[in-house]
Amino acid sequence: MKFGVCYYPEQWPEERWATDARMMRETGLEIVRIAEFAWAKMEPADGRFDWTWLDKAIETLATAGLDVVPGTPTAAPPAWLSHAHPDVLRVDANGRARQHGTRRHTCPNNPTYRHYSRRIVQEMVQRYGREPGIIGWQIDNEFGGGKSGRCYCSHCAAAFRDWLQKRYSHIRALNDAWGTVFWSQTYSDWAEIMPPDDRIDKKNPSHLLDYYRFCSDSIVVYQQEQVDIIRSGTPGRFVTHNFMGLFRDVNQFDLAAPLDFVTWDNYPTGNPERWHGRLQPPTEQREPIDYAHDVGDPIITGMAHDLMAGLRQRPFWIMEQQCGHINWGELNPGIRPGTVRLWCWHALAHGADAILFFRWRASLFAQEQYHSGLLRHDGRADVGMADLQTMVAEQEQMRQLTAQPVHTQVAILCQYDDLWALQEQPHRADFDYWRHSYAFYHTLQRMGVPAILLPVTADLSPYKLVLAPTLHLVTPEIAAALQQYVAAGGHLLLGVRSGFKTGSNLVTDAPLPGLLRELAGVTVTDWQAMPMAAGWELRSEIPGLEGPATYWVESLQADTAVPLAHYAHGATAITENKVGDGRVTSLGFYPTGAQVTAVLRHLISQNNITPLADNLPPGLVAARRGGVTILINFAERPLTAIINGQPITVAARDIALIETTKT
Amino acid sequence: MKFGVCYYPEQWPEERWATDARMMRETGLEIVRIAEFAWAKMEPADGRFDWTWLDKAIETLATAGLDVVPGTPTAAPPAWLSHAHPDVLRVDANGRARQHGTRRHTCPNNPTYRHYSRRIVQEMVQRYGREPGIIGWQIDNEFGGGKSGRCYCSHCAAAFRDWLQKRYSHIRALNDAWGTVFWSQTYSDWAEIMPPDDRIDKKNPSHLLDYYRFCSDSIVVYQQEQVDIIRSGTPGRFVTHNFMGLFRDVNQFDLAAPLDFVTWDNYPTGNPERWHGRLQPPTEQREPIDYAHDVGDPIITGMAHDLMAGLRQRPFWIMEQQCGHINWGELNPGIRPGTVRLWCWHALAHGADAILFFRWRASLFAQEQYHSGLLRHDGRADVGMADLQTMVAEQEQMRQLTAQPVHTQVAILCQYDDLWALQEQPHRADFDYWRHSYAFYHTLQRMGVPAILLPVTADLSPYKLVLAPTLHLVTPEIAAALQQYVAAGGHLLLGVRSGFKTGSNLVTDAPLPGLLRELAGVTVTDWQAMPMAAGWELRSEIPGLEGPATYWVESLQADTAVPLAHYAHGATAITENKVGDGRVTSLGFYPTGAQVTAVLRHLISQNNITPLADNLPPGLVAARRGGVTILINFAERPLTAIINGQPITVAARDIALIETTKT
Amino acid sequence: MKFGVCYYPEQWPEERWATDARMMRETGLEIVRIAEFAWAKMEPADGRFDWTWLDKAIETLATAGLDVVPGTPTAAPPAWLSHAHPDVLRVDANGRARQHGTRRHTCPNNPTYRHYSRRIVQEMVQRYGREPGIIGWQIDNEFGGGKSGRCYCSHCAAAFRDWLQKRYSHIRALNDAWGTVFWSQTYSDWAEIMPPDDRIDKKNPSHLLDYYRFCSDSIVVYQQEQVDIIRSGTPGRFVTHNFMGLFRDVNQFDLAAPLDFVTWDNYPTGNPERWHGRLQPPTEQREPIDYAHDVGDPIITGMAHDLMAGLRQRPFWIMEQQCGHINWGELNPGIRPGTVRLWCWHALAHGADAILFFRWRASLFAQEQYHSGLLRHDGRADVGMADLQTMVAEQEQMRQLTAQPVHTQVAILCQYDDLWALQEQPHRADFDYWRHSYAFYHTLQRMGVPAILLPVTADLSPYKLVLAPTLHLVTPEIAAALQQYVAAGGHLLLGVRSGFKTGSNLVTDAPLPGLLRELAGVTVTDWQAMPMAAGWELRSEIPGLEGPATYWVESLQADTAVPLAHYAHGATAITENKVGDGRVTSLGFYPTGAQVTAVLRHLISQNNITPLADNLPPGLVAARRGGVTILINFAERPLTAIINGQPITVAARDIALIETTKT
Repeated sequence: MKFGVCYYPEQWPEERWATDARMMRETGLEIVRIAEFAWAKMEPADGRFDWTWLDKAIETLATAGLDVVPGTPTAAPPAWLSHAHPDVLRVDANGRARQHGTRRHTCPNNPTYRHYSRRIVQEMVQRYGREPGIIGWQIDNEFGGGKSGRCYCSHCAAAFRDWLQKRYSHIRALNDAWGTVFWSQTYSDWAEIMPPDDRIDKKNPSHLLDYYRFCSDSIVVYQQEQVDIIRSGTPGRFVTHNFMGLFRDVNQFDLAAPLDFVTWDNYPTGNPERWHGRLQPPTEQREPIDYAHDVGDPIITGMAHDLMAGLRQRPFWIMEQQCGHINWGELNPGIRPGTVRLWCWHALAHGADAILFFRWRASLFAQEQYHSGLLRHDGRADVGMADLQTMVAEQEQMRQLTAQPVHTQVAILCQYDDLWALQEQPHRADFDYWRHSYAFYHTLQRMGVPAILLPVTADLSPYKLVLAPTLHLVTPEIAAALQQYVAAGGHLLLGVRSGFKTGSNLVTDAPLPGLLRELAGVTVTDWQAMPMAAGWELRSEIPGLEGPATYWVESLQADTAVPLAHYAHGATAITENKVGDGRVTSLGFYPTGAQVTAVLRHLISQNNITPLADNLPPGLVAARRGGVTILINFAERPLTAIINGQPITVAARDIALIETTKT
Repeated sequence: MKFGVCYYPEQWPEERWATDARMMRETGLEIVRIAEFAWAKMEPADGRFDWTWLDKAIETLATAGLDVVPGTPTAAPPAWLSHAHPDVLRVDANGRARQHGTRRHTCPNNPTYRHYSRRIVQEMVQRYGREPGIIGWQIDNEFGGGKSGRCYCSHCAAAFRDWLQKRYSHIRALNDAWGTVFWSQTYSDWAEIMPPDDRIDKKNPSHLLDYYRFCSDSIVVYQQEQVDIIRSGTPGRFVTHNFMGLFRDVNQFDLAAPLDFVTWDNYPTGNPERWHGRLQPPTEQREPIDYAHDVGDPIITGMAHDLMAGLRQRPFWIMEQQCGHINWGELNPGIRPGTVRLWCWHALAHGADAILFFRWRASLFAQEQYHSGLLRHDGRADVGMADLQTMVAEQEQMRQLTAQPVHTQVAILCQYDDLWALQEQPHRADFDYWRHSYAFYHTLQRMGVPAILLPVTADLSPYKLVLAPTLHLVTPEIAAALQQYVAAGGHLLLGVRSGFKTGSNLVTDAPLPGLLRELAGVTVTDWQAMPMAAGWELRSEIPGLEGPATYWVESLQADTAVPLAHYAHGATAITENKVGDGRVTSLGFYPTGAQVTAVLRHLISQNNITPLADNLPPGLVAARRGGVTILINFAERPLTAIINGQPITVAARDIALIETTKT
Repeated sequence: MKFGVCYYPEQWPEERWATDARMMRETGLEIVRIAEFAWAKMEPADGRFDWTWLDKAIETLATAGLDVVPGTPTAAPPAWLSHAHPDVLRVDANGRARQHGTRRHTCPNNPTYRHYSRRIVQEMVQRYGREPGIIGWQIDNEFGGGKSGRCYCSHCAAAFRDWLQKRYSHIRALNDAWGTVFWSQTYSDWAEIMPPDDRIDKKNPSHLLDYYRFCSDSIVVYQQEQVDIIRSGTPGRFVTHNFMGLFRDVNQFDLAAPLDFVTWDNYPTGNPERWHGRLQPPTEQREPIDYAHDVGDPIITGMAHDLMAGLRQRPFWIMEQQCGHINWGELNPGIRPGTVRLWCWHALAHGADAILFFRWRASLFAQEQYHSGLLRHDGRADVGMADLQTMVAEQEQMRQLTAQPVHTQVAILCQYDDLWALQEQPHRADFDYWRHSYAFYHTLQRMGVPAILLPVTADLSPYKLVLAPTLHLVTPEIAAALQQYVAAGGHLLLGVRSGFKTGSNLVTDAPLPGLLRELAGVTVTDWQAMPMAAGWELRSEIPGLEGPATYWVESLQADTAVPLAHYAHGATAITENKVGDGRVTSLGFYPTGAQVTAVLRHLISQNNITPLADNLPPGLVAARRGGVTILINFAERPLTAIINGQPITVAARDIALIETTKT
């Protein structure tokens, strides 16, 4: 485990740099990220580059013993660029161009912007590519952030048409793939196709899904230009990008593919607050909150860690770690001593190998004045600094753990296509892809069973159990991959709404679950949304599985599968199908917290998965690297869990490490 | 009673058509609506028409014994049209043009669109006008739907100026009619007048009302072009349009006038959900809901039926009948066996003579993938099919009823001018024209007294009692029509806010209720909005009339009228005025549910109107055609009412027919 | 005390004018405001002026004995002007130009509009400047009303650049003052700077604050043109403008500076309803409401009066006084007899010397049809008229009071810079500048201690106690002014978030409270937002000061100051610092109602400030002019307070005057 920090030398007097660099080293920081918003300082006028300040800054930091990670500055182009070329500005779904004065306001498909973007990266790499103090590069900053993931400008319209031509070759194939015969939408020429912006009241779901894919691909392609430039000019340095957890608008698997490893920006009071509304179940089903007011919801943060872990299936970094209050939430509570340490141990437990704090010192100006750093505005230490000192003392312990793999036996499948398709057609307005996944993830966490989020295309063979809360769009390739996993001895849980759609977001005309029907050994004979007040009583021998199935229910007909549960009126609710050496469990309803707990207990027991701890109370979370179980108590009071039959009590807002026999 | 279905041959392989047609006939369907969204298929390029597929489809359906109703396809113009002529696109109140990719995105006043629209209808009529299998025509689809009722483009601006010139002749007359001297709004030239779009923060109510009238007239004129073309080329066929119940933006009386009869699109879980918020009284005054979760609010559906019945005062069709779950509500609950039958009997009871289900088979693609049909996506029967079979067995019983007139002795007046004027100037934000009418309609339904919604211009003489919850804009013609109705023996109830406005939406400078003052025999000496917590106690000999009058109260001064109720502080609250052979009852306050019940009981008794049933519990509704009273139980449990002194119990979600002596 | 009325002769037949004028005089009215919306009538075509009607109107009114106050008509330009010159139309932050058909739809920086605006005022002044019946002039109407305070058109962009060049001289100084190095925002040319409209997602706070200042200055400059024209042509007449109480978008101190005195538009049911949401504390902390449903919140109205009093620190007028129901609230309740009298006495008690009712007769047309006047639409007296008669009988009593100064010993500091800065960066979303001030003002009112709202630049020496709930942006000038006030014997209370910002909205890099640190004798070592459920217990000898400090807490370190309270964990919560002959009390937390009461009791006692009454119950408010204490009971029942040890009971919705010994 290494610690680092984000630093903005351009924002402080040059005279101060050496002091800051010395203080960083003295406090145990080893890595420093710089320069990712300094384009205007690097290129103060079109084609005029000024590297003197950055030469000096890098030298000062490197001399002090810090490893430097420069960021390419393309997320924040200079005023002269958008002033001279206003068409570089991104256009929102309402048709209005953005404006200089913030960041991420340009279009990734704009040729002019691409030209300037390539040039600044080339110049930067040419100058610093072989600089000894530099260990790796960050590309841009938080792709898609600030609702920048989708642009609707005329350059995007043209690029979208190219993208479609490559995908469908003939306009007739596109018409078929989108079902444009409906409402007379048929296109007779590529030129008639527009981005599905808000001028269209009700949009064609296939048109939308392709546009979302295109927008994501546009960013991937944009990033690739920088990857190529950096790789060719920076021998031995890593290339990464800072990702955004449960962010929805970009396919983060695609974006991660060409990078050496993933880093992400972890703001435990901000991100969970932002994601909370679309993750939590209806109020009456929520567990009482039992964590401190300044730690954020640790299970939501954990799910983000486990998605980041799944992007490349290897350890990741925290490129920006909250180390005090932030400025972009609703309340932005002050952070108390000890909290930053919990967050860092939590990140480590889920797979982080390095953590950089955001930021060194609070900014005196502009949009993030109220965002704290390790230092206050006046230069004194803020709350995170003491935690850093505590952790420096624990660093050896941490390093032993980062050498160990994260222990995970369960995977949850995650497909951005499904997320986007269901976002646009939830059928019931409160159905949300992440909420559905979170119901399973949350329960696993509460049971002490770690999980990772993976795409279907990943190698699933290491996992005893794979959950697909929904696998909505299914292509023959997806069906084959799952068939292979199961036949080789895997266990797949398949939830509602699976197999409903084709690859281009049409409904299958085959009996449901469509291409997964043979694998599951069931036919879905009926599906429906249901108000919470209604419901079908369940009958099952699975312990604890009871109460009405509601919200979303499907009637299963067991073909080759065996029923595990029925609805009171007779239809089958859960089945199990043996396929080769493995099994598929089909779950015919959207479960309540208690129901998902019963089902998962059954599956875990069936697959000999041992929870890391028993009787985990709310607020206490468990993870494991190598042979060490890490308990983290996010509550205000001591909490006790059982490990190997022994009660282990963790102090309030503290951690405990327990050596366990490897399983 | 005939059954039919909406079918989209263009959305299915040609090889399937004959199978579908055969199945339709086998399941008892007799009518099929087609083609209303198939413009791109009929005219794949500008001026190139392809009728081969439609020839074949009509032939296939007709050969199978189905009566065909084609729709003109003008609600969904092809992509090549808006691509070549972007100015055909409708502009919203925020100034943004719509875009291809949905429906209803064109402007009815655009000359180019009008040209293409006329041409496709002419071509279609020329080809199919005398086709034997075709029994009638639907024009366009749901005029005004999807917020398309009002366009703000430059063609509309010009057409609006023409419309104003015809109405006012001189700009000075317009200035007077709108009161433009206020805030220096005076126009010196027609060219200065713009549509009242959202660039104006606070709009002149007379300007607004004239624009709403103009927009409605624009659609009426647009429709008339098609009516003329169809009438001239389709001898013996009917012409209709599918209306939208309690939809607000188009004057449906005007739109219905040139048609043979009215049809409407009845979605009992969707429409009431959409209308509910502006119909229900404040929470504390609501009756407990006692109907099943998948039936929708039957009294709201009933009010829509009774408005549709009033449009032409003759039986109507359901052109689109929900027959399973829909896709455009908040929850879109699954529909259970038996529900579709309730909806059909309900429609019949209120005056429907034919019902077409929407749609034959669920769409595999595009915007309505989640809308169910009689068949599922995979071709199996969905829930509505079994209900259809039940009803086919009951069809003879149904036919005897459709031969009989709907029994109605009470009319509720309905003026779109009033709806629009009060929508823009509710004075208290929660005052709503339909909500106010619904308070009366709902109570009549709960009492077992049928009602029809009619304009003042209708022949009111058949009705013993006419309710005007508010008659807000009053012209001399309106006053004269009511005078005549009452003098000839009618009984008029006149509610609050009546006679307040002139025909151009100015306030009268005469004592209130203005032009109705002599008829009512009262002067309103004071009116005011009042918070629910305040109120004036009532004193009256009308049984059950008590509690505070609040929300909206008016102090009446009985001139020639006789007081029937007073407020505790002395002013008169209700009066009755004898005029010729009739009576006018003036109601000086917006009544609570209990108060409106007391007042209506009094009026019903006074006019010898016999309720269809006594002690109707919530969930059970009653209607009557000829000598048969139809009871429909929308609740989950058996309910009992009293008819002719006898208790009649109707099973849960079932109906009962009771032969009664004609009155 | 004089009474008057707003009259619109152009809206009524000329034959009616003399009748209206006579009735006004007979009912005791002495002043009449006219013409402020009659531009189209004065100049019906470009350059063609018609004064005949206004000559006649002024003559009629003056002949009847009324003093006339014309308004310049520039808030409502004619249709021909915006039709011929559409670029005069104001542009909103979303980029859309406004449109004719309302008022305040033009841009104060548009040169064309300025030309026409100057000309109509010049013409008007030339004709009526020496008219004997005219006593003074109102400029325009409610500057900034209807969200018109900020325009984002290209003329504003250009004027903003000029304004910035004057302020900063060099672009580099602007870059420093805004901290544009952040996110690469650096400007290399003035031409690159745009108004911070909604095309920017996250805006630079210094950019925003300067734009708000610029917009406010633009209106001040616009007004000054009219001030100059009127002053030069109307010898001996006053010049004023009608202000808007707690309105936020214009610096009302600046706007008031060149005027003779301030008038404002007092709508006690409308304004408090509009302001309420951002003034009241969280629900659980609110006092039960105990005032009648038709009077509005009297303490909010009182705070508006006391801000208006502070604008010029002299008596003011009510230019528009609500005298019945209004039309722009949510419910617009009817007003009962007696209420208008309460409002007028309340205004007088806080410093009003004349009251003009809005309006003489309710309008028959246009946007304000539902706004009542002294006369109803049909010409009969409405509810306010009887109250006016009551007050005419009390007028001598009132006049004795208007000759006396308002008794005020406490000032609350008010800085629009701070309001705007905190509006854009509240840090916790519910932190609001006025809400914070209101917590103090409300408590003073409930304690019977009058207060005035003043800018730091005012002469504070007359006030025993000056409260600065927050003094956020602090310049050396501000620090010096406060130093001088305190050193000369004053007592300053300094609340949270003080001294945090520089004059250009950067964070100070000095220890907090920055430039106020020496004056306060404390250092703020930590600050944080805190959820209400958390909190730090207080320990203090100040009676009644207890319970947790929460919401916003700061840890103080007493440097030269003495601690008055601590948090349970040891940090200092309140201090007192002696400076010269005075004292500074520093309050380290955002107080609850009970806490602010305890602190203010302590300060009042310390400074020998005697409340006007003891045990004031909610609903009863107290003020004093000269030696007379005025009690006003806004509740529905009699209420009793203690004055000089004697219980004084005031009847429901009535007033009482108590002669007291001057203090």
